[in-house]
Amino acid sequence: MLHNDTICAISTPAGVGGIAVIRVSGENAFETCDKIFKGAEKLAETNANRVIFGKIVNNETVDEVLATVFRAPHSFTGENTVEISCHGSIFIQQEILKLLLSNGCRLATAGEFTQRAFLNGKMDLSQAEAVADLIASQSASAHRMAMNQMRGGFSTELRNLRTQLLDFVSLIELELDFSEEDVEFADRANLKNLANDIEQKISRLANSFSVGNVLKNGIPVALVGETNVGKSTLLNLLLNEEKAIVSDIHGTTRDVIEDCVNIQGITFRFIDTAGIRKTVDVVENLGIERTYQQIEQASIVLWLIDGTNVSEHIEWLTEKILKRAEGKKVILIFNKIDKLEGEEIEVLEQLFSTCDCEKIKISARQKLNTDILQKALLKAAEISEINQNDVIVSNVRHYEALCNAQNAIARVIAGLNSNLSGDFLSQDIRECMHHLGEITGEISTDEVLGNIFAKFCIGK
Amino acid sequence: MLHNDTICAISTPAGVGGIAVIRVSGENAFETCDKIFKGAEKLAETNANRVIFGKIVNNETVDEVLATVFRAPHSFTGENTVEISCHGSIFIQQEILKLLLSNGCRLATAGEFTQRAFLNGKMDLSQAEAVADLIASQSASAHRMAMNQMRGGFSTELRNLRTQLLDFVSLIELELDFSEEDVEFADRANLKNLANDIEQKISRLANSFSVGNVLKNGIPVALVGETNVGKSTLLNLLLNEEKAIVSDIHGTTRDVIEDCVNIQGITFRFIDTAGIRKTVDVVENLGIERTYQQIEQASIVLWLIDGTNVSEHIEWLTEKILKRAEGKKVILIFNKIDKLEGEEIEVLEQLFSTCDCEKIKISARQKLNTDILQKALLKAAEISEINQNDVIVSNVRHYEALCNAQNAIARVIAGLNSNLSGDFLSQDIRECMHHLGEITGEISTDEVLGNIFAKFCIGK
Repeated sequence: MLHNDTICAISTPAGVGGIAVIRVSGENAFETCDKIFKGAEKLAETNANRVIFGKIVNNETVDEVLATVFRAPHSFTGENTVEISCHGSIFIQQEILKLLLSNGCRLATAGEFTQRAFLNGKMDLSQAEAVADLIASQSASAHRMAMNQMRGGFSTELRNLRTQLLDFVSLIELELDFSEEDVEFADRANLKNLANDIEQKISRLANSFSVGNVLKNGIPVALVGETNVGKSTLLNLLLNEEKAIVSDIHGTTRDVIEDCVNIQGITFRFIDTAGIRKTVDVVENLGIERTYQQIEQASIVLWLIDGTNVSEHIEWLTEKILKRAEGKKVILIFNKIDKLEGEEIEVLEQLFSTCDCEKIKISARQKLNTDILQKALLKAAEISEINQNDVIVSNVRHYEALCNAQNAIARVIAGLNSNLSGDFLSQDIRECMHHLGEITGEISTDEVLGNIFAKFCIGK
Repeated sequence: MLHNDTICAISTPAGVGGIAVIRVSGENAFETCDKIFKGAEKLAETNANRVIFGKIVNNETVDEVLATVFRAPHSFTGENTVEISCHGSIFIQQEILKLLLSNGCRLATAGEFTQRAFLNGKMDLSQAEAVADLIASQSASAHRMAMNQMRGGFSTELRNLRTQLLDFVSLIELELDFSEEDVEFADRANLKNLANDIEQKISRLANSFSVGNVLKNGIPVALVGETNVGKSTLLNLLLNEEKAIVSDIHGTTRDVIEDCVNIQGITFRFIDTAGIRKTVDVVENLGIERTYQQIEQASIVLWLIDGTNVSEHIEWLTEKILKRAEGKKVILIFNKIDKLEGEEIEVLEQLFSTCDCEKIKISARQKLNTDILQKALLKAAEISEINQNDVIVSNVRHYEALCNAQNAIARVIAGLNSNLSGDFLSQDIRECMHHLGEITGEISTDEVLGNIFAKFCIGK
């Protein structure tokens, strides 16, 4: 792993803005920047944590910028770092980046700044991963979870478990040294209590993953129905913006459009789908096949029906959707209810009386009963109140490590119950410790690190 | 105009990134930020141009951030300013913004930071406008033009002209004070020379607008032809990325897609259009009508023909396109040339022998002859080499003011030629000065300022 070269990247979001920030980190950060930055003083001679105004100069002036100096080890990465705050034109961002590259910098890989922070001991691995989660967080609950993890809530718990296991295994291994004398340093009854306690803690963490995963990624909700029943209008209403193209012509929505919306702190990931209808159009049928796949991946299915115009294919459609939605929570929505009289509504309800799912009548265009729909969604989501002090696992890598640790500690408990000899016990305890250590990064490989940081954005 | 309240905005591009910067400016910037920022020292007591690490705290920690302190008048706006560098999650950006708003800040309007810089005398109006141009610049030439303007190249020239006019008008107005004595302080021959000189300078600036406008916005190039002739493939090739959906099914491109590409420093703004064909599809016909409009707005029309499959409607199409492209530079492109034999090519050329426009044979898919196409585009653009020290006008407001100033100075010259009396001359000279002053902002109204800064992005 190259670790002493100087890296650079645009750290602010991609695109045009008032300002953009380019981050440079590494042993030669000051010297490299001084080659292109002309300010009142050299960055190499500037005090730590100071901002200097100056120009980025090639042959001509590229931009007037602010450069902030951070000195190792008191920076995010733990290395010498310069943050160049330039005008937020894409052209300028790229020109400055090019200049840095031609003056000895290397473009940072995804997450490399955070990876260096980890390698320089500024944070453990689960904290580093929380940085990415924090940046990706879209709801109060996901944010709180990531912030807890970044600030070490997670690591503290795991470190405690590992310490307890280490005490545990040390005593057992001490017994092994004296194996011929048949002593028992580690009281087996106490050990059993401790192992049970640890098993419970690991289980609790592992079990929190299902909640954590939903908090982080949102509950997938597929919005399905025939063409022209008002799916896009309903989605727009829920998203409160014009993401989907709304048109009066059948079959306008061909691509799957996805967006998240928070209802009372819970993130729902809405998936607008191509309208299902019998068609020979190749592109459209591809879209419909994708709709079925989206139903299978969703937790909740909103099945929208145009109350004013129930299709002649409704039985075919009912069968199609319910078959694919097996095991999901299906909410049947009658749309355009504002255009119906009392009797017509009764006929409509009669038609679907055999369908065993919640039924709601709305008008997406008139914004009628959307509060009822929101309540139905929250009910279908059924996430119990999250205690904000709970440590919640939301990372699939952590979850896998916890499951492995859980298996190992279960073997320890079984071993204790069947009076297994100390050397076998010790092996399982060490394995449990290994998996817990993977989470915090006390145990890690280049491959694991590579996988983790590849998911970061460049510039972080 | 409210000018002493404290404003805040996200200054980095919209979206998710490693970091984002929130700017706070105004008399109470430090006190407001200190209410939500908890660091090693209070921002109000921090030295200027220093960065402090700390937490943004509501009831719980919202984020760990860096806060940079700038003290009036040594900041961009000339006011006390704090720049908060936070994690680039949209959620965090919004939470911090909300906290600032609930602690007495007001959300900055578009361009308000730059407007304050102008009002506080940190820059003149044309320099402030150049900030927006700089941020929007997408090519070396547009960037250089904006940078020159921001650094005052433009203002210096205008200030010189105004000073000369002021000397001029002062002498004439002095004559008016002594009108009964029939003196002539201002030598009319010298004045005529000076007026001609100024008229030439203003003309040169006004004339530079046509070049400046193209440098800034790019030369509009419409890419037209029947469906499925390879327009999207060619556009992707030119843009070097997959912006358009390429498919083998006719009529895939329904929306007008636009993007800029630099060829040897010149920006071409390529406009992919809906394929033209005879159709009864309502959506598609809307797209085709838009295609015609795009042709009318373009400077160059790339008319793409599938060499392997010349449509039976080719005459109808030829008439349609050439009629709408009157006065434009039309380049006829035979695509899919790799699939044709020598004889077939001759037949093809024969078919279009009466069309009086440049003809190029390419294969977009095989990337054949794209260099020839690029050269043809550059030739069609026909922009003479820009002298990088030239002051170029690219702003339509400046252009209008220059035209008005030009008219006024022309009236002065005519007046001098017809021995017009000093009071009339003086009026026209003052008008010329007024229009020049509008450009630099020595003359401005709230309405003008409102219009100018409304075009900025929020956060700048």
